[in-house]
Amino acid sequence: MSETRARLTREYMGISDGLPLEASSGGVDALRADIQRLMDMEAIRQLKHAYFRCIDSANFEELATLFHPDVLVHFKGGNYEWKLQGRDDYLESIQKSFTKNAIGHHNGHQPEIQIHSESEATGIWYLADNMWIKPNFFTTGTALYWDRYVKEAGRWLIRETRYERLYEFMRALDEGITPSSHYLADHGADPPA
Amino acid sequence: MSETRARLTREYMGISDGLPLEASSGGVDALRADIQRLMDMEAIRQLKHAYFRCIDSANFEELATLFHPDVLVHFKGGNYEWKLQGRDDYLESIQKSFTKNAIGHHNGHQPEIQIHSESEATGIWYLADNMWIKPNFFTTGTALYWDRYVKEAGRWLIRETRYERLYEFMRALDEGITPSSHYLADHGADPPA
Amino acid sequence: MSETRARLTREYMGISDGLPLEASSGGVDALRADIQRLMDMEAIRQLKHAYFRCIDSANFEELATLFHPDVLVHFKGGNYEWKLQGRDDYLESIQKSFTKNAIGHHNGHQPEIQIHSESEATGIWYLADNMWIKPNFFTTGTALYWDRYVKEAGRWLIRETRYERLYEFMRALDEGITPSSHYLADHGADPPA
Repeated sequence: MSETRARLTREYMGISDGLPLEASSGGVDALRADIQRLMDMEAIRQLKHAYFRCIDSANFEELATLFHPDVLVHFKGGNYEWKLQGRDDYLESIQKSFTKNAIGHHNGHQPEIQIHSESEATGIWYLADNMWIKPNFFTTGTALYWDRYVKEAGRWLIRETRYERLYEFMRALDEGITPSSHYLADHGADPPA
Repeated sequence: MSETRARLTREYMGISDGLPLEASSGGVDALRADIQRLMDMEAIRQLKHAYFRCIDSANFEELATLFHPDVLVHFKGGNYEWKLQGRDDYLESIQKSFTKNAIGHHNGHQPEIQIHSESEATGIWYLADNMWIKPNFFTTGTALYWDRYVKEAGRWLIRETRYERLYEFMRALDEGITPSSHYLADHGADPPA
Repeated sequence: MSETRARLTREYMGISDGLPLEASSGGVDALRADIQRLMDMEAIRQLKHAYFRCIDSANFEELATLFHPDVLVHFKGGNYEWKLQGRDDYLESIQKSFTKNAIGHHNGHQPEIQIHSESEATGIWYLADNMWIKPNFFTTGTALYWDRYVKEAGRWLIRETRYERLYEFMRALDEGITPSSHYLADHGADPPA
């Protein structure tokens, strides 16, 4: 690559400080808003936790409930770039990847959630992932994710999600992939014919 | 395997929604209950975090304080199944695994905790683990955990704990296991004679 | 090694119980203090999360904002020991490690945070890390971290940070390190001449 990549600072990600993690000096109503802010942070963490659980277990029904209908997706890997908009397109892309031939292992670590209002939030996550595709393809690496969340009809949803790699290794394995347990072999999407 | 595995949905796990992550519209007493719910979630996360720390560091004394006396355990791996009841049996099983010949690396990621009452909760976790057993045996994989927790005498305890694998690889390594640091060599349980 | 290592108990780490995760029976002011305690826990988690993000992305400017000027550091690996005091020395050490020749992957898991007062806290973390240094050096392992945090001028800072390894493998790889994505190649510190 001849071009220098952008620095993955909070500024580049468009992540500003959220509402401060300081209890209000006000009365009961102000404390209620503080409690709601803590509950919103927890709800957003659980939303993203469910996302990682659902992709690796090919739980496409539950996965569909986590995204805004107009979700914007932009992921940059070493040799791939996913850029798309809309829940339907995103789900279709995920189904193409998480097939019966795949083993997915995606963990989102170290959440840094910023609440900006009663219905708007952002977050940074540190992805570590392994992905095997039969017969012998393996990818591993990390990435920084940055997301925007919105609350609609009482539920937090993923509105925008982006990542760029910190590192990535891809290789063809010398030996085949022979897991002693392989959940997606039963429940992954059917691979393209 | 001729049988198709069950789908690891929340329904299969028996995980229902907990009390909502919405602040009460009530007064001081209602807000106190909301705060307690957030504190209970934190206490349960720390309980499970201590569990993973204690198994990998063979801290059996602290580990014993984390389980209900009648804890129910059911873990399904690729080639093994642990099903047992009672803290004493569980501790004995763990001591058989985390010996001076072992290196354990077990991390519980992405907690999704549901509070059902002042003393009952459930949770889903995403396990990623590596385990080496000398001279040359290695297992790695992931699993979904689902737990039930109870609060007794002011302390949250693990009442039921189950997992099933998403994937697992087991292999005999070509070379011996020669770590540059190996805590369990000093502090693991004595291996069976 | 002829010496037996110390057991990594909470007692050895100097970690005592924090303020209890029990809502106060008092009125509005007492509940405000409870809420602040929950917010402090979240702020400390985000502080440490930012630390791991910033080292692996060589974001030294943001990293500098996370430490107390007199931060005490003591890390014990298999073949190395870092013991130093002061933010400037710590940052200099980190810059020597996270160069354009390095790939760092450090995740802090399973936080157990104890709040001791409005401005003092401790925490245990479970580190899992991989580090590649070109041309072919690789280290992987886990460690238990234990930290002290202080709040000064409204911000939580890392005041003391220690770790000891649970396991560590170091090896020279047979093949060179050829990532398909390598952020630090662009943004790591210049390696020593």
